[in-house]
Amino acid sequence: MGRGNVSGVATVGFWIADSGDLMDEGRRAQPDRGRPDRADGGPFVHRPDVVVIGAGSGGLTVAVGLSTFGKRVRLIERAHVGGDCTNVGCIPSKALLHATDQPNGRTAGQIFAHVRAKRDDLEDEEAAEYGSTDKIDLQFGEAAIVEPGVVEVTAADGRVARVETDHIVVATGSSPLRIPIDGVPPERYLTNEEVFELDAAPKRLVIVGAGPVGMEMATAFARMGTAVTVLDAEDQILSSILPEAAAVLRSALEGQGIVLRPGLVAKSYDEATMALTIGPLDGEATDRIEGVDRILVGVGRVPNTDGLGLGALGVELRHGRIVIDNKGRSSVDGVWAAGDVSDRGGTTHLAVAWGRRIVKAILVPFAPAGSEPIAPNVVYADPEVGTIGAQEPSVESHVRRIVFNYTTADRSYTDDVQHAVIIVDVRRFSGKILGATVVGPRAGELISIFSMAMAKGIALHQWSDIVWPYPSYAHALGQIVDEFATERLKNFHKDVPSWLLGRIRRRA
Amino acid sequence: MGRGNVSGVATVGFWIADSGDLMDEGRRAQPDRGRPDRADGGPFVHRPDVVVIGAGSGGLTVAVGLSTFGKRVRLIERAHVGGDCTNVGCIPSKALLHATDQPNGRTAGQIFAHVRAKRDDLEDEEAAEYGSTDKIDLQFGEAAIVEPGVVEVTAADGRVARVETDHIVVATGSSPLRIPIDGVPPERYLTNEEVFELDAAPKRLVIVGAGPVGMEMATAFARMGTAVTVLDAEDQILSSILPEAAAVLRSALEGQGIVLRPGLVAKSYDEATMALTIGPLDGEATDRIEGVDRILVGVGRVPNTDGLGLGALGVELRHGRIVIDNKGRSSVDGVWAAGDVSDRGGTTHLAVAWGRRIVKAILVPFAPAGSEPIAPNVVYADPEVGTIGAQEPSVESHVRRIVFNYTTADRSYTDDVQHAVIIVDVRRFSGKILGATVVGPRAGELISIFSMAMAKGIALHQWSDIVWPYPSYAHALGQIVDEFATERLKNFHKDVPSWLLGRIRRRA
Repeated sequence: MGRGNVSGVATVGFWIADSGDLMDEGRRAQPDRGRPDRADGGPFVHRPDVVVIGAGSGGLTVAVGLSTFGKRVRLIERAHVGGDCTNVGCIPSKALLHATDQPNGRTAGQIFAHVRAKRDDLEDEEAAEYGSTDKIDLQFGEAAIVEPGVVEVTAADGRVARVETDHIVVATGSSPLRIPIDGVPPERYLTNEEVFELDAAPKRLVIVGAGPVGMEMATAFARMGTAVTVLDAEDQILSSILPEAAAVLRSALEGQGIVLRPGLVAKSYDEATMALTIGPLDGEATDRIEGVDRILVGVGRVPNTDGLGLGALGVELRHGRIVIDNKGRSSVDGVWAAGDVSDRGGTTHLAVAWGRRIVKAILVPFAPAGSEPIAPNVVYADPEVGTIGAQEPSVESHVRRIVFNYTTADRSYTDDVQHAVIIVDVRRFSGKILGATVVGPRAGELISIFSMAMAKGIALHQWSDIVWPYPSYAHALGQIVDEFATERLKNFHKDVPSWLLGRIRRRA
Repeated sequence: MGRGNVSGVATVGFWIADSGDLMDEGRRAQPDRGRPDRADGGPFVHRPDVVVIGAGSGGLTVAVGLSTFGKRVRLIERAHVGGDCTNVGCIPSKALLHATDQPNGRTAGQIFAHVRAKRDDLEDEEAAEYGSTDKIDLQFGEAAIVEPGVVEVTAADGRVARVETDHIVVATGSSPLRIPIDGVPPERYLTNEEVFELDAAPKRLVIVGAGPVGMEMATAFARMGTAVTVLDAEDQILSSILPEAAAVLRSALEGQGIVLRPGLVAKSYDEATMALTIGPLDGEATDRIEGVDRILVGVGRVPNTDGLGLGALGVELRHGRIVIDNKGRSSVDGVWAAGDVSDRGGTTHLAVAWGRRIVKAILVPFAPAGSEPIAPNVVYADPEVGTIGAQEPSVESHVRRIVFNYTTADRSYTDDVQHAVIIVDVRRFSGKILGATVVGPRAGELISIFSMAMAKGIALHQWSDIVWPYPSYAHALGQIVDEFATERLKNFHKDVPSWLLGRIRRRA
């Protein structure tokens, strides 16, 4: 995560125990895994009100938020401030996507060096920004919750510090799932943690997993001239989005020369011939790809719960993730969780949203949590894909699914856009927006407009008096609104009974 | 205007009197200015309920909207369906901006041919789309209102038809103001009506007027290798936007090699030396630019009211534009106006918004008009500039002006954005958004988010529970909201009295 993502509070600094070391250490090669005490050798002087484990998006949001309102926060980090987002996620991936889109004559090696420099500069900047005041004590080490209200921190040199506190917030994030592929030597096996360390573009890259990482990296590597093949166990790329949307994305990526082979997984690799055999998940290899020099695996995430002591404590997990309630509380009093280690994570902005809820719940314990955040998802492939809300393959009769050919929007026309679609699910009578999908230009911003409307309860026909600048891409939304409003007006007599029926059903 | 811009109704066709001719005529070279009767030679059979003069964005919106609800509409057009937007405005300018941004090896000549083909294809498509039903009678000719409720249409061959009706909607648009510049031969003098007819990029282009046309064309021509100088009588480029925003745009354009010389106007041209002398508006020439082969004038618009008979009818004008009330009515009963010919025009989407109000007012005469549309403006230069609401150089104490350095947003960071700013004016206590400016990536979509918030009355602190996808460009708005919400919380005790004082003042 970057500077903009310690949300909820703007200008709060950290006291970083040893920010000099943070900036100097050879981070990725051999991360120095912590020191138990302050840089001056003395112990931390305060008993913290809150211990936050993990200095990624969720943890930083909680730490900065609570410290702003006077809470003493101990923030424990085992590796790098900023978490996956800054180091191996959003920041380097978006920098790579941009640099490959506008290479300006740079070689692939220069592009990767640029991406790493961007990442490192941001970390340095964050360390400098957060290292200016004494609101937060940052401590490097491995944390374990040994009993309710007690955390032990083990430094790299083996020293152990015991910290007592009122609240423990687990925000340790997740790691890439490293599925074994027979015969692949480690130097050819990449995940998001290794891919930005490359110094040259692979000749032939097989991406295992057609999820967000796979789609974005397929886009970026294809631009560098790499022959890219993407596999996925599911029959659809980006399996969580609507089939119509996936089909549009598929056409676009294939137009860029990317080979998509959903329904197939990697079986085994032969180093001598550099051949990867592939086949259906539950079957033998049916085909082989020759000359594969790198394999990028992006098939899922494993929550970082090992060694935290959650089992002994009795914290309820689901699929390995900490189950939280609508305030961010785990099943054990005083233990909270946010972000990817919880069962409500998945993205940086969701980690931040839940971090904010924890801040509010700790500061104002009896206030209601309010409705859960409605979070959009964006995949920054070319084209971008934005989704929010329900993504049901088919809808019931009281829901109207509007499928708008976004290539026919006037700006898409002037800009020669070939692959784009907007899909909106709306309750026919009330106009309530249930979900939306945007594939195409500026999807991240268009889906943000739906995010505002859904958070604020603005029904689709209520958008009618909004003026969209012509010919912005957002103007396309006005066409969707008109289509819905016109049909709604025509079908009013039919929709009223169906709406009443729906209400009766919901009550029953 | 394009297909997406006949707003308010989606799938309504027109009966076009002679769509075959419309598609075949050599339009720009020698527009055929109309025929009084239907293509089959017979007269129009119906007395129309409404006569709409002008088939641009405003006129089409009224014609399509009213015909959808059963009104008989006669639509009179003297030249081209689609108006300036499709023919010499939004569509070709955006196509040129896109094609120069992504030339894909095309020459300037090929780019201009592409732009014209885009424009012509869209017109053909519109003509085909609107030529399928009999809801609207389209008649070519010059219209004049001879008395209340009576329009005379003069065809190209001189024949005159008299049309009686209940409502007359004037939507004749505007034309570029052609200021005389001493010594400039006609073939070197361009406005938006000629610029897309070029077959090669000028070597040295002087743009007179640093308004929307000037800024967009400066961007496009600089990309084609033309040496571009922009003059303006005002001391600031885009004089209607905030100085801080203009300064950011200025830096960006200068970084592209565009020479900006605000405070200077064109004085005279010498064909022998191809030198243009320039100087302050109220003074002698102080400098000269050599080797100027084209001059593009974009200094303002003249409403198209000549020959309409408005003077004799007593229609009130202001600066030559028809004064309309909040329903779109002129000072004379039964005469309405929308778009650039009225005093509430200026953009395509504003013409559409007022067209919609006229549709509503004619259909439901006693319904209140509702609050006036709050319309954003976007200039599609590089970077884009979006504005909405008040643009006051300085603000009163009860207004907080948030100036956010949009280059520090995380996505701007990954994408190497050098020139960007977001400025938001908010009432300190209520959080009501008074105005906003976005200079930078995706400004057209970000300003659309402000358009939604202002239309729906969503105060800035109420944005706090909206989740913005990270790291979209829209995510920057979350940082602005946090900054405002935090400061507002801190200053609550100060802002309450100032809010009360404001209320008392407004009542007094």
